[in-house]
Amino acid sequence: MQNLNIPESKKERVVIIGGGFGGLTIAKKLSTEEFQVVLIDKHNYHTFQPLLYQVATAGLEPDSIAYPLRKIFQKKKEFYFRVACAEEIDEEGGILRTDRGNVRFDHLIIATGSTTNYFGNVKIQSHSMPMKSLPEALDLRSLILQNFEASLLTSNLHERERLMNYVIVGGGPTGVELAGSLGELKLHVLPQDYPDLDFRRMSIHLLEASPRLLNGMSDRASELAKKGLEKLHVQVWTDTMVKDYDGEKVSTVNKELPASTLIWAAGVTGVIFKGIPDSSIERGRIKVDEFNRVNGMKNVYAVGDVAVMLTDKTPKGHPMVAPVAVQQGKLLTKNLIRQRKGQALKPFSYFNKGSMATIGRNKAVVDFAGMHIGGFAAWLIWMFIHLMELVGFRNRLVALVNWSTSYFSYDRGIRLIVRPFNRTTKKVEEDVHTNVPTDE
Amino acid sequence: MQNLNIPESKKERVVIIGGGFGGLTIAKKLSTEEFQVVLIDKHNYHTFQPLLYQVATAGLEPDSIAYPLRKIFQKKKEFYFRVACAEEIDEEGGILRTDRGNVRFDHLIIATGSTTNYFGNVKIQSHSMPMKSLPEALDLRSLILQNFEASLLTSNLHERERLMNYVIVGGGPTGVELAGSLGELKLHVLPQDYPDLDFRRMSIHLLEASPRLLNGMSDRASELAKKGLEKLHVQVWTDTMVKDYDGEKVSTVNKELPASTLIWAAGVTGVIFKGIPDSSIERGRIKVDEFNRVNGMKNVYAVGDVAVMLTDKTPKGHPMVAPVAVQQGKLLTKNLIRQRKGQALKPFSYFNKGSMATIGRNKAVVDFAGMHIGGFAAWLIWMFIHLMELVGFRNRLVALVNWSTSYFSYDRGIRLIVRPFNRTTKKVEEDVHTNVPTDE
Repeated sequence: MQNLNIPESKKERVVIIGGGFGGLTIAKKLSTEEFQVVLIDKHNYHTFQPLLYQVATAGLEPDSIAYPLRKIFQKKKEFYFRVACAEEIDEEGGILRTDRGNVRFDHLIIATGSTTNYFGNVKIQSHSMPMKSLPEALDLRSLILQNFEASLLTSNLHERERLMNYVIVGGGPTGVELAGSLGELKLHVLPQDYPDLDFRRMSIHLLEASPRLLNGMSDRASELAKKGLEKLHVQVWTDTMVKDYDGEKVSTVNKELPASTLIWAAGVTGVIFKGIPDSSIERGRIKVDEFNRVNGMKNVYAVGDVAVMLTDKTPKGHPMVAPVAVQQGKLLTKNLIRQRKGQALKPFSYFNKGSMATIGRNKAVVDFAGMHIGGFAAWLIWMFIHLMELVGFRNRLVALVNWSTSYFSYDRGIRLIVRPFNRTTKKVEEDVHTNVPTDE
Repeated sequence: MQNLNIPESKKERVVIIGGGFGGLTIAKKLSTEEFQVVLIDKHNYHTFQPLLYQVATAGLEPDSIAYPLRKIFQKKKEFYFRVACAEEIDEEGGILRTDRGNVRFDHLIIATGSTTNYFGNVKIQSHSMPMKSLPEALDLRSLILQNFEASLLTSNLHERERLMNYVIVGGGPTGVELAGSLGELKLHVLPQDYPDLDFRRMSIHLLEASPRLLNGMSDRASELAKKGLEKLHVQVWTDTMVKDYDGEKVSTVNKELPASTLIWAAGVTGVIFKGIPDSSIERGRIKVDEFNRVNGMKNVYAVGDVAVMLTDKTPKGHPMVAPVAVQQGKLLTKNLIRQRKGQALKPFSYFNKGSMATIGRNKAVVDFAGMHIGGFAAWLIWMFIHLMELVGFRNRLVALVNWSTSYFSYDRGIRLIVRPFNRTTKKVEEDVHTNVPTDE
């Protein structure tokens, strides 16, 4: 079997799986004076996931929210990055198997994050669109634009209605932000691109199974979000659990909605692979102790979304958000050093800095230190914080150019269907050439 | 059969196939006071083709060189755009058949441009990479980056050599610009991303069958281009015609070069579809008279790369470049109006404004009004003209941000493999999830 071709060193080797918020924090902070550090990821870039919905709704291009991992680590010595997908842990042998070959480890950190959870509903999964990765967000963007092109071609009003209806399932931050962004497209952008279409016929439905939106946030934020979305023509349906979807009609506990496009943002689950004992897995996430060590395993750790730390204080674990991953990553980095030095490890404790969600172009809701801020002020905070978090000066600058031109011109410049998406095959379509062979 | 759902009007209908330089010019200039104008294109965007090589070498993102066609025509009345691919002309019935339905026409303008010409060599075609469309440029970018990732994983020196060698066939502007851009990646960008790889082992070969580069330009430009490329470590082979390529080894009339990647920029041919008489086709292009009317057809015109205007002055037709398409488009627009008014038509005469090609980051060659300029001054002219031509203020601004950050930091920020490309299947690979089904 091929291996990942990483030279052996005298130092202990730490292998990190995943360059998301958790893995990236560890890879950046962990001293290569103490360890040889290996990072693997199936993509060659870090994705700023909170802004994926902007890519899906043609507000930002991929390069504004993604950053090449190699560039981040250009100056780090004794550090190795490989594009590979983890497949199995051989704990006893200290080997991680990947699709590109094996790699030996002394310490293994699982930071694979989470993916869309359909809760076993294969029918919904096969017809709906997820939005947890950059390619998925680009597919969704292509599909949204293709829907309007297709709407123009049909004289069948029922078909046109289905094509122009959007159902978003899940009233968390992703669902709320996506719905708001679609609302703005409907109100301000699409009618100019498609003057022949009657946009009163376009409906955006946001479905939430629980009694309110943004369950992780305050009642005030939840109310403000609902009002803000309704101003953007989003129809919010709480207490509305989805039962079935056949690609044409969404069935819920109390109504049916015709729609060709259902975006599933109702749940996530950890990305797990073989070799982790079943007893260490709880509802799709890996059980860890308060030092992020995987239950029942030695020298194997898990951080962020994929990990669930069950303690008396956190009987359900922590929320699956970026700050938890970053904070766990920072602490684990320190604990690995402490362990080497024979010092006592420090247990994890989550410091909640607050949470926020944006509603359309210039409104947001922010819960922070007991305050609940809404409207334009909250949006400025939201934008500032996201801009600051975007890795790299160039990304910040490009995102700022995009945001400001979009803000002042009420327009989005990037409605390109570069990779047409086939809803039926769920594949990207190849570029077509219509060329009759010539005499040459 | 479905039709393209375009309302009938009292005005004569002009259908334009293709939103490239020729079609876009006509669609913009043709007055909808006089005609109902319909534009179809297989993509929903106009591509600024002269900068495709920048997308392929991770210098620019697609949104900097492409512009949504709907946005250009937002304010034009009685104008209809449809995403569709032309399949057949029924001249007698005045019907164009497309993959999305039929459309009736009074006047039909074929502005489908050109595509890569392999001169019938199916084996070369199946193993090499073209670069004539945005998706093709993105595939090439993915493949280049994937090659370096793969080079890291192999200990086989022959395999690594093949992966790190690039052969570009065709010493026209595309081949020259691509080779220069790859040379800069080799010298300034990649060694920082891949400190473990020995970049002395990366070779860039530019193969040209004729005795010199840039055949359409002056001898002086050709010399300057060769010298400039050699400074960027590009190996230029003139008088070197490619005979065969099996995906691993390029065979030419006088040598063999090991390489996994061959980029074919050696020829283009018109994009033609059914319904045009064989007698009106000359070496893959449509024969037109000096008013751009297709030989032997009524009310059917062809402009730009797809058209070949054979006259005493131009026994081989005009060069396949953007200015010809734009000038033919402008004249045809005027002639259509003249025809309606019963006025005499004006014959086409090409005004050659000069030509240019860039060589790497800050050099270019320009032939203009008898002058032959090289070096940094030429590059400034090249950059200014390209920036001015980019449709839309936002595109210019984003391209400028990209160019300046790239110029001053000697770096390119967008080396993202967003859509991995499979060289064997020639398809974009789907996003992989490694997720073991959970108990839910």
